[in-house]
Amino acid sequence: MEVETPDAAISCDAALVAAFSVLGKRWNGLLLGALSAGPAAFSDLRRSLRGISDTVLSERLSELTHCELISRTVDPGPPVAVRYELTDRGQALMPALNELIAWSRENLPQP
Amino acid sequence: MEVETPDAAISCDAALVAAFSVLGKRWNGLLLGALSAGPAAFSDLRRSLRGISDTVLSERLSELTHCELISRTVDPGPPVAVRYELTDRGQALMPALNELIAWSRENLPQP
Repeated sequence: MEVETPDAAISCDAALVAAFSVLGKRWNGLLLGALSAGPAAFSDLRRSLRGISDTVLSERLSELTHCELISRTVDPGPPVAVRYELTDRGQALMPALNELIAWSRENLPQP
Repeated sequence: MEVETPDAAISCDAALVAAFSVLGKRWNGLLLGALSAGPAAFSDLRRSLRGISDTVLSERLSELTHCELISRTVDPGPPVAVRYELTDRGQALMPALNELIAWSRENLPQP
């Protein structure tokens, strides 16, 4: 006999679990949002994300690069310059981020 | 003389900061996603979000109730029953979560 589990009704969508394994981590959504304006250097991003430490920013950039949502390019210079930018996968997130922005404006107290 | 700051180009959208003050915290997005299927009891949610502890689930439910994204209703019974459900504000997030799901399916490894 098959037993219907209550899980079926409210189980978490696997794709949502995957999405929040990236975005449910502090700073990641904001970093991707900041890069939607175009390529940026480490120091630009640090300035944009007020309150992030260098260590955490480095970690997050490595994770997002590993997920292939951003790319890291080194211009050998001189002077050597490193820039980060959205990949196509990262760029594909922007419609969802814009929906989040619209929802936030309507529904959350703004900082 | 006005000086253009590089900040202008890549500053974080305040609405995105507000959105990720909620969603950039582990479990919150998944909790809201789980409640999109309808009202649920604490035990349903604990089962749905594999790996969350009772303490953290309680904290997250309180926070989301405080933000008025979910509501908590007590049916005096007997037996007493508590259910959580999306408010209109929480419900309004669903189009954005659906965009995230679509993006995740196309762009992230699925668990």
